[in-house]
Amino acid sequence: MKVAFVGLGTMGGPMALNILKAGHQVTVYNRTREKEEALAAEGARRAESPAKAAEAAEIIVTIVSDTPDAEEVILGENGIIHGAKEGAILVDMSTISPAATRRMSGKLSEKGIKMIDAPVSGGSEGAQLGTLAIMVGGDEDDVRKTLPVLEAMGKTIIHVGPIGAGQVTKAINQIIIAGTYLSVAEGMTLGIKAGLDMYKVIEAIRGGAAGSWVLDNRAGNVVENEYPLGFRVRLHRKDLGIALEAAKELGVTMPCAALVEQIENGLMSQNYGDEDVSALGRAIRKQSGLE
Amino acid sequence: MKVAFVGLGTMGGPMALNILKAGHQVTVYNRTREKEEALAAEGARRAESPAKAAEAAEIIVTIVSDTPDAEEVILGENGIIHGAKEGAILVDMSTISPAATRRMSGKLSEKGIKMIDAPVSGGSEGAQLGTLAIMVGGDEDDVRKTLPVLEAMGKTIIHVGPIGAGQVTKAINQIIIAGTYLSVAEGMTLGIKAGLDMYKVIEAIRGGAAGSWVLDNRAGNVVENEYPLGFRVRLHRKDLGIALEAAKELGVTMPCAALVEQIENGLMSQNYGDEDVSALGRAIRKQSGLE
Repeated sequence: MKVAFVGLGTMGGPMALNILKAGHQVTVYNRTREKEEALAAEGARRAESPAKAAEAAEIIVTIVSDTPDAEEVILGENGIIHGAKEGAILVDMSTISPAATRRMSGKLSEKGIKMIDAPVSGGSEGAQLGTLAIMVGGDEDDVRKTLPVLEAMGKTIIHVGPIGAGQVTKAINQIIIAGTYLSVAEGMTLGIKAGLDMYKVIEAIRGGAAGSWVLDNRAGNVVENEYPLGFRVRLHRKDLGIALEAAKELGVTMPCAALVEQIENGLMSQNYGDEDVSALGRAIRKQSGLE
Repeated sequence: MKVAFVGLGTMGGPMALNILKAGHQVTVYNRTREKEEALAAEGARRAESPAKAAEAAEIIVTIVSDTPDAEEVILGENGIIHGAKEGAILVDMSTISPAATRRMSGKLSEKGIKMIDAPVSGGSEGAQLGTLAIMVGGDEDDVRKTLPVLEAMGKTIIHVGPIGAGQVTKAINQIIIAGTYLSVAEGMTLGIKAGLDMYKVIEAIRGGAAGSWVLDNRAGNVVENEYPLGFRVRLHRKDLGIALEAAKELGVTMPCAALVEQIENGLMSQNYGDEDVSALGRAIRKQSGLE
């Protein structure tokens, strides 16, 4: 298929490469133009703007940092809306506001351009290996047409509902990890101050109701007080902001997510925003007098 | 071995039966004496008091509801301390205060009675099947001597540290499930109010960083707004109280555990204390205008 790909960051770069490798014709654009070079060397065409990239495309993939960035590349002066042809499908894989997603979809549809939202989880490793989990919102037909492209990037592709539903699902993911990371941080800190062998403790509880991906893969970071990436605190904080905005719109109370947001504000003010989100353990350790 | 078993509740009854079935000689005592009858029918002896039960025992197992109950059967007027012989080992499998555990151990040691703490997880099903996880604190030698009895009750038996360490480990378990249940409740409620198919959402996120035993086994309770047992809110609330007391003693800050404690106070005041702890979802749903 003819694919345009806008946003070649840590996630987008390897995702675009996987689409190329699957045999699709890919035209790339990135705000920092030099990042297009590695893709061009693998056979991608380059375009001067999102609008130009979109011109010939059947499917246009966007993956940028936040809601204003998505609005810029989709609706801005040189945005996709000014280049995409009628019937083209925009697949926004950024993690952004569900409400903004629905607004953009409405504007695109006035021009006959379709949109699905398809945020991902699985990190840079999943992007490279093509094993991302992709949470998809949109019309059944549109989703089906994009599958050859989505399957080049992800392993678990689940259509959860209409436009915006993918973003709500991603928000749910970030809400759940918030409380899991925080409670693992609290539990680990209690055990450390009690002088326990924390690896034995983890072994004792991991098979039961306390078991989780976070306990298995990140509790050791709290024990060692080292937080290598992973997934940055500042990106999780951004995603929680989106989740809390959605909660306000929908009338949902999320005290645990709000608590984690506050602790992450504190981490960022102390320049820990680029540590892994397990650095919630750093916050709890510090507040408990353990440096 | 000659075993005394004090406390034949939902957990203790089947645990004592498993010790009997493993071929040990068991003498039982329960405050509500009728509960001894089922065990007696299987070959257990009955005693008139914890002290009497302990008289001939090499190993004395206790599993009662809370710290004051443990103090009563161990140190009270007819308590184990007045009957147990020198060299006997008390295995307290209740979930109680680590500090109280160490105090009781000190008093017992003045009489030459040893003590280990060995709280469990795995619920009534684990008690019946003999598949409990047992978190053990105490001296290496004492723990080794009790293994034939512990192995009749549990599958995962991990010695985490000195006396009290088992209780701290259990507290860590309860702290971690607190935040996991709460954040799953918040995420599910957001998705329900957004109108998503929540079973598809769970499928989309369960393989990644949001994955947990709680998400796999209890998130559906929040979706259905039904909270069958499981593990009672009031018992988890009791255990969190122990954890928060330990946090105060050790100087640890646990904002998420404290938040869950408050929400559980609210659930209990509305007569939901005997629902499963996943009823944190009921609280979040109610606060979000979903009955």
